[in-house]
Amino acid sequence: MTKFVYLFNEGNSKMKDLLGGKGANLAEMTNIGLPVPFGFTISTQACNDYYEAGKKISDEVKAQIDAALIALEEKAGKKLGDSSNPLLVSVRSGSVFSMPGMMDTVLNLGMNDETVEAVAKLTENPRFAYDSYRRFIQMFSNVVLEIDVFYFEQYLEEIRERKGYNSDPELTAEDWKEVIAGYKEIVKKHTKQDFPQDPKQQLILAINAVFDSWNNQRAILYRRLNKIPDHLGTAVNIQSMVFGNMGNDSGTGVAFTRDPSTGENVLYGEYLINAQGEDVVAGIRTPQEIKVLKQDMSEVYDKFVATCELLENHYKDMMDIEFTVERGVLYILQCRVGKRTAQAAIRMAVEMVKEGIIDQKTAILRVDPDQLNQLLHSRIDEKSERVVLAKGLPASPGAATGTVVFDADEAEKLGNDGKKVILVRPETTPDDLHGMVYAQGIVTSRGGMTSHAAVVARGMGKACICGCEALKIDVKAQQITVGDKVVNYGDTITIDGSTGEVMLGEIPMIDPELSDEFQQLLSWADEARYLGVRANADNPEDAKKALEFGAGGIGLCRTEHMFTDPKRTPIVQEMILADNLEDRMTALEKLLPMQQSDFEGIFEAMQGHPVTIRLLDPPMHEFLPDKEELLVEVTKLQITAPDSEELKEKEFLLKKVNQLAETNPMLGHRGCRLGVIFPEIYEMQAEAIFNAVITLTEKGIPVKPEIMIPLVGHVNELKLMRKVVVETAEKVKDEAGIGFDYLVGTMIEIPRAALTADQIAEEADFFSFGTNDLTQTTFGYSRDDAEGKFLQSYIEQKVLPENPFAVLDQQGVGKLVETGVKLGRSVKLELKTGICGEHGGEKSSIEFCYKAGLDYVSCSPFRVPLARLAAAQASIRHEQNETKVPELSK
Amino acid sequence: MTKFVYLFNEGNSKMKDLLGGKGANLAEMTNIGLPVPFGFTISTQACNDYYEAGKKISDEVKAQIDAALIALEEKAGKKLGDSSNPLLVSVRSGSVFSMPGMMDTVLNLGMNDETVEAVAKLTENPRFAYDSYRRFIQMFSNVVLEIDVFYFEQYLEEIRERKGYNSDPELTAEDWKEVIAGYKEIVKKHTKQDFPQDPKQQLILAINAVFDSWNNQRAILYRRLNKIPDHLGTAVNIQSMVFGNMGNDSGTGVAFTRDPSTGENVLYGEYLINAQGEDVVAGIRTPQEIKVLKQDMSEVYDKFVATCELLENHYKDMMDIEFTVERGVLYILQCRVGKRTAQAAIRMAVEMVKEGIIDQKTAILRVDPDQLNQLLHSRIDEKSERVVLAKGLPASPGAATGTVVFDADEAEKLGNDGKKVILVRPETTPDDLHGMVYAQGIVTSRGGMTSHAAVVARGMGKACICGCEALKIDVKAQQITVGDKVVNYGDTITIDGSTGEVMLGEIPMIDPELSDEFQQLLSWADEARYLGVRANADNPEDAKKALEFGAGGIGLCRTEHMFTDPKRTPIVQEMILADNLEDRMTALEKLLPMQQSDFEGIFEAMQGHPVTIRLLDPPMHEFLPDKEELLVEVTKLQITAPDSEELKEKEFLLKKVNQLAETNPMLGHRGCRLGVIFPEIYEMQAEAIFNAVITLTEKGIPVKPEIMIPLVGHVNELKLMRKVVVETAEKVKDEAGIGFDYLVGTMIEIPRAALTADQIAEEADFFSFGTNDLTQTTFGYSRDDAEGKFLQSYIEQKVLPENPFAVLDQQGVGKLVETGVKLGRSVKLELKTGICGEHGGEKSSIEFCYKAGLDYVSCSPFRVPLARLAAAQASIRHEQNETKVPELSK
Repeated sequence: MTKFVYLFNEGNSKMKDLLGGKGANLAEMTNIGLPVPFGFTISTQACNDYYEAGKKISDEVKAQIDAALIALEEKAGKKLGDSSNPLLVSVRSGSVFSMPGMMDTVLNLGMNDETVEAVAKLTENPRFAYDSYRRFIQMFSNVVLEIDVFYFEQYLEEIRERKGYNSDPELTAEDWKEVIAGYKEIVKKHTKQDFPQDPKQQLILAINAVFDSWNNQRAILYRRLNKIPDHLGTAVNIQSMVFGNMGNDSGTGVAFTRDPSTGENVLYGEYLINAQGEDVVAGIRTPQEIKVLKQDMSEVYDKFVATCELLENHYKDMMDIEFTVERGVLYILQCRVGKRTAQAAIRMAVEMVKEGIIDQKTAILRVDPDQLNQLLHSRIDEKSERVVLAKGLPASPGAATGTVVFDADEAEKLGNDGKKVILVRPETTPDDLHGMVYAQGIVTSRGGMTSHAAVVARGMGKACICGCEALKIDVKAQQITVGDKVVNYGDTITIDGSTGEVMLGEIPMIDPELSDEFQQLLSWADEARYLGVRANADNPEDAKKALEFGAGGIGLCRTEHMFTDPKRTPIVQEMILADNLEDRMTALEKLLPMQQSDFEGIFEAMQGHPVTIRLLDPPMHEFLPDKEELLVEVTKLQITAPDSEELKEKEFLLKKVNQLAETNPMLGHRGCRLGVIFPEIYEMQAEAIFNAVITLTEKGIPVKPEIMIPLVGHVNELKLMRKVVVETAEKVKDEAGIGFDYLVGTMIEIPRAALTADQIAEEADFFSFGTNDLTQTTFGYSRDDAEGKFLQSYIEQKVLPENPFAVLDQQGVGKLVETGVKLGRSVKLELKTGICGEHGGEKSSIEFCYKAGLDYVSCSPFRVPLARLAAAQASIRHEQNETKVPELSK
Repeated sequence: MTKFVYLFNEGNSKMKDLLGGKGANLAEMTNIGLPVPFGFTISTQACNDYYEAGKKISDEVKAQIDAALIALEEKAGKKLGDSSNPLLVSVRSGSVFSMPGMMDTVLNLGMNDETVEAVAKLTENPRFAYDSYRRFIQMFSNVVLEIDVFYFEQYLEEIRERKGYNSDPELTAEDWKEVIAGYKEIVKKHTKQDFPQDPKQQLILAINAVFDSWNNQRAILYRRLNKIPDHLGTAVNIQSMVFGNMGNDSGTGVAFTRDPSTGENVLYGEYLINAQGEDVVAGIRTPQEIKVLKQDMSEVYDKFVATCELLENHYKDMMDIEFTVERGVLYILQCRVGKRTAQAAIRMAVEMVKEGIIDQKTAILRVDPDQLNQLLHSRIDEKSERVVLAKGLPASPGAATGTVVFDADEAEKLGNDGKKVILVRPETTPDDLHGMVYAQGIVTSRGGMTSHAAVVARGMGKACICGCEALKIDVKAQQITVGDKVVNYGDTITIDGSTGEVMLGEIPMIDPELSDEFQQLLSWADEARYLGVRANADNPEDAKKALEFGAGGIGLCRTEHMFTDPKRTPIVQEMILADNLEDRMTALEKLLPMQQSDFEGIFEAMQGHPVTIRLLDPPMHEFLPDKEELLVEVTKLQITAPDSEELKEKEFLLKKVNQLAETNPMLGHRGCRLGVIFPEIYEMQAEAIFNAVITLTEKGIPVKPEIMIPLVGHVNELKLMRKVVVETAEKVKDEAGIGFDYLVGTMIEIPRAALTADQIAEEADFFSFGTNDLTQTTFGYSRDDAEGKFLQSYIEQKVLPENPFAVLDQQGVGKLVETGVKLGRSVKLELKTGICGEHGGEKSSIEFCYKAGLDYVSCSPFRVPLARLAAAQASIRHEQNETKVPELSK
């Protein structure tokens, strides 16, 4: 026979799956001797059985409930429904993961017309008894009978008005009796039945209602948002009632064993005298600070402090404790690990190590890597009021305030004058770069998480919101419209790049704080981790930032951003538009010294840490003017200036742009496909890199270049491109008379590359998994199209568990990564492997990378601390897997 | 010690890898006692060693040549260079695969100033001796010394003119001596050395030259075209010379044991009396039919006929035999399996079975499936002269002649009047469909093998050439320009959709011929094959054609072509532009009866064979007007008619088109992603299918519908869409009160689907591998972009061995197919699996499908015979693998 019902002394804190978090902790506290009102827990399994049986509690479960109730009645010395000494109980939900406020609770169950009299007599406090009864009717009617609270409140309001009272405490026992009678009528009117008087029936109905609340809308939504599986079910806790509202020697409160917002080691909390829990929640009376309790009830306070210490030492963590004092007796109603801010989490973890409560590894596991992000960017003060105008994609974290400008030149001008501006554009192009540099943040109405604006902003560490489609941006009129709201040029807005929210006006912000504890925790993480952490950085500024945040090297240095500098664009276009090799070579020769100085700057910043440079990747047409804009210009000129030179020039350009245009640029002529068709481009890049190596070597600065060939799908592509790089290196070495080391590797970002990684490894010194593109090709999703068109709905409909561009899809994309590593190492045991997609900065993906046996992850500089921590957590969780020597440069 | 040199009596026909085809056959013929001039073969391995040693013949090989030469001299009773009885030899290449005319040959080797006198004396024919010597000098100088033949021919011409001769036979022995002297001077002038007189030196130099010729340009090109690996190398055959030019009792000829163009069982060939082989090749004299030999030399003829019979019976195949008669004695110089036309191959194979020479399986293996294609379409008569204007992609096979039109309406009009037209467009859209129906063939300058024109033309079985970029098509001027050539409206052109050639004027054509033997061979193939063969067909006409060609069902019925009918376009656009569900439903209701009648027609045509219907696949914007055209119109109207209603309408439409536009439509909102977001569309399609099933069932016609969900990447997509289909089926069944069976399956065309096929199989009754899209996503190639931009160069540079869209990439894409089958069957042992990409009609891909364990392939109707044959060949080649019961409906 399955055990569905557990008395509190039959469970413990490890039984969360079965008893839910609350039930398990109540059992644990009971067993360590804390003053917990006795009770029992109906398991989550009973909940699942309830749903499987078509929302019916089985006879077996009912029988176990009866048995547990008898045990409870014996322990309490009271009986449910007893007319002389009645037991009153609370019925509360309790799922495996905390879902505060999402599901239903019924208090004071067991009250009826008879027992209320007994309670009045026993407590010698009729007012308390009738008040409790009316509270019960109201709560039960709402939760179980589904009658809107409004009717009860309205009625109570009428009574108050009629009697001329201002607040509830003014009502007398007789008044409450009148209210009870009125409440019962409301119930009768809505349910066509009398309010149930049988406490057993009340109990079963309440349990049903708690089970049902597992699937109410707000609970479902909460689970979706917090990624809690639907199949877990909730447990139900039945517990003897204690009353904090039995006079001034009673009260109720909530406390944290440490300050949950700063992490300081002080008792933190509040309480209300002569009150029940919901009075605290309702916010009608203002609670006192917990230390005031020492004055009100010194003995109770001391006992509570001792209990807190006991609990923290027992759980070895900061605890969130609910307590009630009933006539001078302290009861602990609930305890759980307390929620905390990022700052507090770090401080507590580090201090607990120093206090000897936990070890370093436990401290590392205590902090959610996602929280670190909050600490690295300015953020909106959560306490501040705000009007959210619209919500877009959270493209680059951080918050920023400034006046709205619609034009990059304007942004540069105002920014130069020291003004704070937010650049608002339908989308950005390389032409807007100079404006972005001077803006505090960027908002676009089009484009996804990999749009130009997003990528550049993340690189710059600037707040950015993309694809904010609700904003109708009229650049000409210099105006944004959202519904009936209008924002004009010069108006102030605040944006939160971590949430995607665009807000009106200036909102108070909190500056980033990198505490000593933060540094301490990360240095422990570095000791614990196996996975290397590198950063994606395309320029010396980002490279410096990466080092500052603890990166062990650059895992992805994209060279295309170096081509979008407005000063270089004409030369790049000259190169693209060249009709023959000679003209192309002439343009490339002009680009060579520019590229060389790019690399010199980055190498110098990285001071001998490895730098993985990806040769040119995007299709050529990305460097040319927009096809549609050009088409419009040509069409206009054909009418207005049909004989003009301008028309001829534009027509020529349009023809070229059309020739280079692609139906599916993502799958087009890019990556190494450019290098195979135009080897002179990769040759120029290799030469620039190696020339830079020579320059630094001559200066005595160490350099570790790793040249990466993108988009390889067949080993022959890599073979050809490797040859170009190696020959160039030999040439440069010969000319300079100086030797140097370098690696040549490849991105694995096409399914075919992963599937034939054994062949490819023969030509590669390293693999870097480009999981952005690999996700696009493995799913057959164009990221730009999917995010705007169907991906959101897919996640809402649960077709996909996550956005695969944010969280690595382990079943599909991950299988290819594993295949790639396995096949690659089958021919080259020491093949260096890493990941440079955005997943390199996401914690579950980092754990996957660790399990797949990668050597390092690479992510944007601002995510490096997160990655260091997540990598350490992965190592600690799976320590037994570590068989390979970690990369030296973590 | 490795044996590099084999006497003819030391080898046999199985040693082709080592001795080359010619050498192995010479050995075989020697051993079965045929009159083969004796000789020896230097192996292909010696050739590879030659290249590895940097083009040097090793001493070991030289020693073996010397030994073999001594054996040959003994057998011949003559010695190389002997001044009284000299041995003369031929030196010929001979690779594993026949490469006719690609490599070099030297005849009469051993001639020098001394031996020529001996030959004159021995033959009592000085004229013959000097003629032979001058031929040798000319050939050796050309092949070995690399002196252009032109100099020798020019000199001979001078002599002839000076002497007043019209042809060579008029030259006397003395004349030839003069020529020899002149030839020697030419050699001296070009090489600064005397013509080599030492026969041993001549021999070694000639062997070097033959080895070198393996890598001459035309040989390399031939190998690339015929997919012969470069590493095989060539053997060299050294054989005693016999002379067909020793008088009227001598001669030389070539014969096939059966007619190589019709297959008729008659000796077929020609010969020249008193001539050497190259006289036949040179075409100076017109040869006689072989049967005339019976009159000239009756005994020799009978012996030759007997030898032919012996050879055909020995090799059990039609043979191509070279012979020489020297003074009444017959010598066989060479024999090989004869090349033949498709028609002949089929007739011979079938007749040889009936004659008891070979069995059915051998007959099946005798015919190259690719050849069948020739027989199903009109084709250019190969003998005809033609001017090729340009070459594009061979998008749909067959040849067609007609006058050029540039407009679909015009094509329809003229076609309706019974005129033959070729529709020439930059590209076609669904708007051109009505014109394509009336055209004989279609040519486009843009677009690849899957462009609209290509897909539609293949479906219609019409000749089509796509992406013919050399054609500058000016639709307005109704003119095509290619270089300096101009083709105007109304000019006649001929196109060959099998080669991609566009030709001027009308070229004679051969009609398709489906002989009884063709049918016989395919019926044997059907008995032998395990793989089912289905056809891709979207309408009743194609379905009928598919059945006619022997398809066992429809493997892919695309529903999008049903939406492009001009009558339906407005309703489809209404559906797409609908802002809400209600409006969309209204449009869908109008489409329902149209779709239903589509399916009724197809089901009726298929008479109970299974029909796999793919629900809507392309992105919505494909059904809307072209974005750029619209942009141009709007821009013009903004200037010319800024207040017009037309502008407002177009602007509205442009806005919608922009909303639906995608950066990468191939990876965009299409396939089941449409169905998930707009389930009502798939619901309508399912209802139309099931309504059609009911209609046919009521008529008593059996129906086997298989509904296919496209582009599934995650099992949840299929789960949702399956639910829509199943619920619709239940609804239709309930309403009609009639039951029916159906399957619901999915395309596997996204890497993730193959990688998670075990999960997907839980929801699928069948898998159909869509290898077109799977190739695009596995390689990360957009087919439209790749074919025009880099794929051609990739194949030329040997980055890729083949075009992966034509020949399935077994290492990458194939690995995913195998994974998909394996994972799918791991949860559903009897899961039906097929392929419906274009690879389903390509022979090596069909063999792969067989090996991967698929149940069927599906291809365009015209490729069904090819697939039936290729499937049978796969079965015969790998019989031992067959463990599973084949699909019932082959």
